[in-house]
Amino acid sequence: MRAAIFSGPGAVEAGDRPDPVIVESTDAVVRVVLGCVCGSDLWYYRGESPHAAGSIGHEFIGVVEQAGAEVRGIRVGDLVVAPFIYSDMSCPHCLNGSTISCPAGGNFGNGTIDGGQGEAVRVPLAGSTLVPVPGSGHPDAMLRSLLALSDVMSTGHHAAAVAGVKKGDTVAVVGDGAVGLCAVLAARRLGAERIIALSRHPGRQQVAREFGATDIVAARGDEAVQAVLELTGGIGADAALECVGTEQSAATAFAAARPGSTVGIVGVPHGQVPFAQTFFRNVGWRGGPAPARIYIPELLGDVLDGAINPGLVFDYETDLEHVADAYRAMDERRAIKSLVRVGTV
Amino acid sequence: MRAAIFSGPGAVEAGDRPDPVIVESTDAVVRVVLGCVCGSDLWYYRGESPHAAGSIGHEFIGVVEQAGAEVRGIRVGDLVVAPFIYSDMSCPHCLNGSTISCPAGGNFGNGTIDGGQGEAVRVPLAGSTLVPVPGSGHPDAMLRSLLALSDVMSTGHHAAAVAGVKKGDTVAVVGDGAVGLCAVLAARRLGAERIIALSRHPGRQQVAREFGATDIVAARGDEAVQAVLELTGGIGADAALECVGTEQSAATAFAAARPGSTVGIVGVPHGQVPFAQTFFRNVGWRGGPAPARIYIPELLGDVLDGAINPGLVFDYETDLEHVADAYRAMDERRAIKSLVRVGTV
Repeated sequence: MRAAIFSGPGAVEAGDRPDPVIVESTDAVVRVVLGCVCGSDLWYYRGESPHAAGSIGHEFIGVVEQAGAEVRGIRVGDLVVAPFIYSDMSCPHCLNGSTISCPAGGNFGNGTIDGGQGEAVRVPLAGSTLVPVPGSGHPDAMLRSLLALSDVMSTGHHAAAVAGVKKGDTVAVVGDGAVGLCAVLAARRLGAERIIALSRHPGRQQVAREFGATDIVAARGDEAVQAVLELTGGIGADAALECVGTEQSAATAFAAARPGSTVGIVGVPHGQVPFAQTFFRNVGWRGGPAPARIYIPELLGDVLDGAINPGLVFDYETDLEHVADAYRAMDERRAIKSLVRVGTV
Repeated sequence: MRAAIFSGPGAVEAGDRPDPVIVESTDAVVRVVLGCVCGSDLWYYRGESPHAAGSIGHEFIGVVEQAGAEVRGIRVGDLVVAPFIYSDMSCPHCLNGSTISCPAGGNFGNGTIDGGQGEAVRVPLAGSTLVPVPGSGHPDAMLRSLLALSDVMSTGHHAAAVAGVKKGDTVAVVGDGAVGLCAVLAARRLGAERIIALSRHPGRQQVAREFGATDIVAARGDEAVQAVLELTGGIGADAALECVGTEQSAATAFAAARPGSTVGIVGVPHGQVPFAQTFFRNVGWRGGPAPARIYIPELLGDVLDGAINPGLVFDYETDLEHVADAYRAMDERRAIKSLVRVGTV
């Protein structure tokens, strides 16, 4: 089959990989319909984090082509959403809501396990991992939103959920990448009344507004904190969502959060946390890789109802043969998030 | 009046201070019955943190002697528990549960404002700060437990509350000082089924067991983490409560906490947090100075019912004239917590 192949920093190209087959009786083979490029794929692309040569990409929706004898809950022909990791959903960690720590679980597109940027994927633990999509004939815009559940929308939701966003809250979202924008949407979905999006890019500001941002702050750092404080009568936000991962963005989120609140962190942290400073304000943090498999079923309903449309984050599209362009568009910040169209339902 | 006077590291002695009088119409003057020495007072005593010369001590119970014209909710003659800071309980921060950030609030025993280690205290914002104790003729053991609500028990409860301790949980408590022991008691009170106390001191282990610890781990650092993992089938604790504040104790708490859980931190943090490491396990933290004023009413009921007896942390007692001994006993780790008996109800 054809698939994106990572061969080193700056080098992701379409190439050949073996057609996936059922190896374990709990496997399924999924024919990919839509894949995409994640912000975290860019770290590998930019050489900021190591990645094994081979398969890449961990977000996809597709159609089940084969299912092992022990696969329950999904059937051949089902349209499915894949969370960005596979997990057994029965170990203590999965039951505690932390699928990333599932000892039987693992990552798609890690060089060896098939990636979502390819024609097909062998999905381990398929019955507990894949989420079937009810209905048929979903329009393309809806398919794009379903693809967003694979990672970015679930991750944005994680930020809002762990920060305890609730009805009536004022929420500050640091980061206007696809995850930050989805965090805006997640905060609105959870009932936030006021959502302050930190963004300097007109195109992203527009998506933020469509997703429910009531205020845009174009400043950064201390100036951004000052602006959030002014917008909140000097109090700070009831929750701040950190969707970048730099030392500056974390400091901004902590300072924009009101005393006693929790910062939801989904931007993979670089640098140090201003710990003692936040302690005396009783500002904590929670977060990490989202348990997408747990969130997808509830978010799926809202996508199918048309209540949320996270697929709007895809503002660049190409096909598998041009996957290198998908990376370049994001690397050069021409795209919020690149979609890779692989097949049809 | 007589009161403890801080005049520099290693120098806390009984001395003279002006008798407190009503200054603002929201003030009360409280005659102190019991005061005590806090672990944080030791930082000043040891020269690890600065402290203005003058009054010291922020924990006390006493009897209201005078009340300003605008004081509501307490009356002359009431036995009252003072939370370790005063606050207005009506500003957004207080209403959000973060009394430490009350702009009208402040610290007792900060050099200028009277301290709890003295014969009397002018209490600003007395109506919103002091909690009256119903009934009369409380035995001494109960008075000691009421004193513990002023700080240590409220702080232990804060650790457990922000970590989300709930019925059936397994909780690891790092730190066997008065706060750590109270965190054990708080975890039991919130329904934890298994409470693992990290302690190497037989006397403190005994109090921990009386407070509800089901397991004692005498190791430290990596060995302690290993022990907690073994006791929890390799999973980790549903909540870890950090009641020390060193880099090692924080690292121990983070590593002992299971994926997806929250570390409750009340030990004032020194050093760096192992941020990226905890992120990938979805382990967060919350905490800071406890909103004691908010917790005291609910804890008070349990003290009066005899359901909790946090006063057991006081294992050394002296009077105001010997307050220097109270500090020495804690500094030399001969005492868990020193009580200073000042008056009678």
